[in-house]
Amino acid sequence: MANNYARIAADILRRIRENRPVVHSITNYVVMNSTANVLLAMGASPIMAHAPEEMEELVNIAGCVVINIGTLSRPWIGSMVSAARLCAKSGTPYVLDPVGAGATKLRTDTSQDLIKAAKPKTIRGNASEILSISPAGGTTRGVDAMHDVNEAVDAASEVASSLETVVAVTGVRDLVTDGNHSLIITGGHPLMGYVTGTGCAASVIVGAFLAVEEDALIASASALAFFGLAGEKAAAQANAPGTFWVKVLDSLYTITAEELESSARIEEA
Amino acid sequence: MANNYARIAADILRRIRENRPVVHSITNYVVMNSTANVLLAMGASPIMAHAPEEMEELVNIAGCVVINIGTLSRPWIGSMVSAARLCAKSGTPYVLDPVGAGATKLRTDTSQDLIKAAKPKTIRGNASEILSISPAGGTTRGVDAMHDVNEAVDAASEVASSLETVVAVTGVRDLVTDGNHSLIITGGHPLMGYVTGTGCAASVIVGAFLAVEEDALIASASALAFFGLAGEKAAAQANAPGTFWVKVLDSLYTITAEELESSARIEEA
Amino acid sequence: MANNYARIAADILRRIRENRPVVHSITNYVVMNSTANVLLAMGASPIMAHAPEEMEELVNIAGCVVINIGTLSRPWIGSMVSAARLCAKSGTPYVLDPVGAGATKLRTDTSQDLIKAAKPKTIRGNASEILSISPAGGTTRGVDAMHDVNEAVDAASEVASSLETVVAVTGVRDLVTDGNHSLIITGGHPLMGYVTGTGCAASVIVGAFLAVEEDALIASASALAFFGLAGEKAAAQANAPGTFWVKVLDSLYTITAEELESSARIEEA
Repeated sequence: MANNYARIAADILRRIRENRPVVHSITNYVVMNSTANVLLAMGASPIMAHAPEEMEELVNIAGCVVINIGTLSRPWIGSMVSAARLCAKSGTPYVLDPVGAGATKLRTDTSQDLIKAAKPKTIRGNASEILSISPAGGTTRGVDAMHDVNEAVDAASEVASSLETVVAVTGVRDLVTDGNHSLIITGGHPLMGYVTGTGCAASVIVGAFLAVEEDALIASASALAFFGLAGEKAAAQANAPGTFWVKVLDSLYTITAEELESSARIEEA
Repeated sequence: MANNYARIAADILRRIRENRPVVHSITNYVVMNSTANVLLAMGASPIMAHAPEEMEELVNIAGCVVINIGTLSRPWIGSMVSAARLCAKSGTPYVLDPVGAGATKLRTDTSQDLIKAAKPKTIRGNASEILSISPAGGTTRGVDAMHDVNEAVDAASEVASSLETVVAVTGVRDLVTDGNHSLIITGGHPLMGYVTGTGCAASVIVGAFLAVEEDALIASASALAFFGLAGEKAAAQANAPGTFWVKVLDSLYTITAEELESSARIEEA
Repeated sequence: MANNYARIAADILRRIRENRPVVHSITNYVVMNSTANVLLAMGASPIMAHAPEEMEELVNIAGCVVINIGTLSRPWIGSMVSAARLCAKSGTPYVLDPVGAGATKLRTDTSQDLIKAAKPKTIRGNASEILSISPAGGTTRGVDAMHDVNEAVDAASEVASSLETVVAVTGVRDLVTDGNHSLIITGGHPLMGYVTGTGCAASVIVGAFLAVEEDALIASASALAFFGLAGEKAAAQANAPGTFWVKVLDSLYTITAEELESSARIEEA
């Protein structure tokens, strides 16, 4: 039975379908095609561009900006930092996807530089990425902390509080927190781990939800519930990753607001 | 029943399948994979490359070059301008896809710089892109002009005449004109709007048709009729965008010249 | 019935599924998404990155590096050469995919520069690419040499011996040689020629096999047998390239070690 969070998720999805919000991604080469398709399938309008010369015009027409550091280089880092600052200036929300933060110094540093340049509305990553950008360092507890739900909530809340942003940690279950309130989202399917860019897809879906909903905690949790449901529906029709991803795209298009309302599983932590 | 245009379209498709023409794209990151697959599926041979050092060699082996400005940056603009000039020098036809022209100054300026550097055989875009590169400015009539077929023909013809090129405006119906003659192509499916790069796909298909047919008006209209038919066949087998795109690729491969001849809908405006 | 090579291929696949080796690609924009999906589907862990600042950290966590020159530019060439040197320093095997070598001077030169910078474990290409990087020039016999199996073995062996590397020539049948021993692999399907990046996919699969098996001749032949089997299984379920590629990804995931053992066709030349 739909709880209040599920009803709100359905309402946000309805607004996306009505308004087709523009989501501007500065993202990695690997997922540009697949995340553009994710946004179109669900009813949003993707833009992908990185030239500094057109950044201000594009940020101004975007409902949300997604910055994903998956394939970095110096010129792109410059564009990302500039985009983050323009978001702050124009009041456009932005999502940070710190792909591989913790794995290399360049990625950890770039994530932290972006956060310093302008506060993201939501940071979406896996547990090790999120811990690596913690101002506290996060190394004492390490990734393993996230294996236990209570410890995961504590660790993510600490990051969210110190950065004053919403943090969305995706994994077997997803956790969204603003430091005070924490929500657990159940959904998805193990086949997601056999397709590239599913984390990046989660981030752009969060972007589309943020484009039409100001409450970043609710928007992020709703987005992950929607994506999780798409994964479940796809897995019911596929047993291998090629077909699975095709069905994920189909499901992002076919899932109605009513279906999301009756199926979203968002609970307080 | 097949009209003369449909017969010619079928003949051009036959020549593509026999000769597997090389289409060299300098295009945006988002659609590189999908448009390479479009070209291969239909029977052409894609090359994607942007290094200035190898541009002349590649233009010389290409039957057509496609320049698509979807994800610009300074070095790529330089390569595009250089490719356009090399096309003029070697007599290789080129297609311009002015993605997002009108939306940012960088895109409008780059489109106009490319046209000044060397005249494209065909410019393929949506109505607002085409109007934005009009030498007349096109702002007086605006995008809305294209909602009425007669006004659309007038506006597109004006652009084609003043630029001395063929203009292909794609939308619910497609319009191809050289300023004197205008053709209307019917086909496609609304699901095309839920997949990224369908406009870019139309442009590379035009490129493949131009590689084997000198008459740019006929080649462009035939290409759009072929793509429209692929969209219709795909939509008959799919009700959501993931499956739809897979079936578009399948249809580009399976549609025979005979089928195109009996199904293409190309009419004088 | 399984021969000894098939048994070894199955054993290597088992080790990939158990260890999920990290394969780091510096590759072309066209195939980044598709080859990442290939690696994930088969059970490996892809990384794609090109920034010089993080190259050493990533080479150190990779089980194998794949360098693919499909969409070159000066900064990327620098990163590729640096990656090759880091592989030599750390003992990480690397695969070279000299896409388009022979077609442009930039590609031929870059391939040769990479080989000089550090010896690849395996070079995977089509016949004309392999002949173009032969130190002997390879122009006397030319591509046609590869139409006859005996001449192909001689030509490829000469390249392998002079470069002191394994050479994998893919085509209707695949040939893998270290100059002394040569293996012929039968499999695949003509539909592979209608999908972009199938050669690049073969190269990353070789990379995954090399990550867990030191014998480059055996690893490369096993990889191509595995990919060929995936192509055959896919073709049994598809008659056009869109569906075919989806089924290739499915097959890379579903083919078990036992199935590979009973179906791999690897024979001495």
